Amino acid sequence: MISPQLTTTDRTTVKRAAERASDDRAAAYAVLDEGLVAHVGIQVDGQPFVIPMVYGRDGDRLILHGSVASRLMRGLAGGLPVCVTVTLVDGLVLARSAFHHSMNYRSVVIIGDARRIDDPDDVSAALDALVDHLVPGRVAELRESTPAEIRQTLVLELPIDEASLKARTGGPRDDEADLDLPVWAGVVPLHLATTEPVPDPGSVGHPVPSTVAGWSRPTQIP
Amino acid sequence: MISPQLTTTDRTTVKRAAERASDDRAAAYAVLDEGLVAHVGIQVDGQPFVIPMVYGRDGDRLILHGSVASRLMRGLAGGLPVCVTVTLVDGLVLARSAFHHSMNYRSVVIIGDARRIDDPDDVSAALDALVDHLVPGRVAELRESTPAEIRQTLVLELPIDEASLKARTGGPRDDEADLDLPVWAGVVPLHLATTEPVPDPGSVGHPVPSTVAGWSRPTQIP
Repeated sequence: MISPQLTTTDRTTVKRAAERASDDRAAAYAVLDEGLVAHVGIQVDGQPFVIPMVYGRDGDRLILHGSVASRLMRGLAGGLPVCVTVTLVDGLVLARSAFHHSMNYRSVVIIGDARRIDDPDDVSAALDALVDHLVPGRVAELRESTPAEIRQTLVLELPIDEASLKARTGGPRDDEADLDLPVWAGVVPLHLATTEPVPDPGSVGHPVPSTVAGWSRPTQIP
Repeated sequence: MISPQLTTTDRTTVKRAAERASDDRAAAYAVLDEGLVAHVGIQVDGQPFVIPMVYGRDGDRLILHGSVASRLMRGLAGGLPVCVTVTLVDGLVLARSAFHHSMNYRSVVIIGDARRIDDPDDVSAALDALVDHLVPGRVAELRESTPAEIRQTLVLELPIDEASLKARTGGPRDDEADLDLPVWAGVVPLHLATTEPVPDPGSVGHPVPSTVAGWSRPTQIP
């Protein structure tokens, strides 16, 4: 059974600003479901690398994918320890001193060992989870993935278990002595926004499906 | 003299989708100047960690900062190899197959060894670069950082040298055989947007400075 709490270990316990940390699984999943890009960290030959990747969440596992020819993906499939971080930027925090400037954000850090998904049906399901993560409902509009496509794709799953959520919300926290300075202080809220969808040449003049026209991210700013 | 090209080595040479890679320093700086959050990767006790951090660019160096009490920051200051990645998400690419779904993005990966900045004047200048990176012109509105604030802040510089830029632009690249499928294909453009600034209680009713009211990111989508 999956615990409603994430497992915090020595490695994921937030040491700094611990009041910003949470081990609530539902809140972490809300961040993962809103994010579009994960930053994936592995170490190769003594050097860390951080690579942006599309991802999806399928229940209690995170799905990553790439080409079977990718060195990074092969390293991950070979059992290298990995860290996957998803960050949402919610606002700029403008204080009355440079020192107290900050950012409002929500961030989930997951560590563990990724595992390659071998079963073709599970690969297909995981790819669907990736596409429906980006555009909910999109898979139902598409043909099924072909066996050749499934063979060319290396899909990894990472259990969402050893993980932590960190967030900052609210306005600046200025020093008492600075409160009377004649400096505007507050928050500039930020969010990801869309503009009009741009059709491919073959789709010009065709109706835009509601999955695309109504696309937005579910946001749960705490 | 700094080369207008970034140094690509075996470690930063983009192996996959090499047509998406560039070593143009100006284009990489445009990405760094637009981004707000860097994902910083280091390895500790055999486990990679990827942490989101505010950053700034000061000429040919990237500035990171944190508390002198932060284990991550002390590790970095101690000379651990680091990878800093900044990613901008420009759009969802919806193809006619799940396989060809993609993301338009620009991403800069920098690797190297960070170095602690010791000189208090240089720390102060680096902190200013961080704040003016978030909100251009903001530093001119603030009092100077105090010696105590400078002592409490650990500021690191990472030379922007061994680095690479990767980007995807444009519409979906479907298989020929899929072009006649009755599926809408195209791009959903994405960008970071603001809403009305929210004043701190002490700033309610005060005029919002143009640095805040006119805040936007310089965007150079290729």
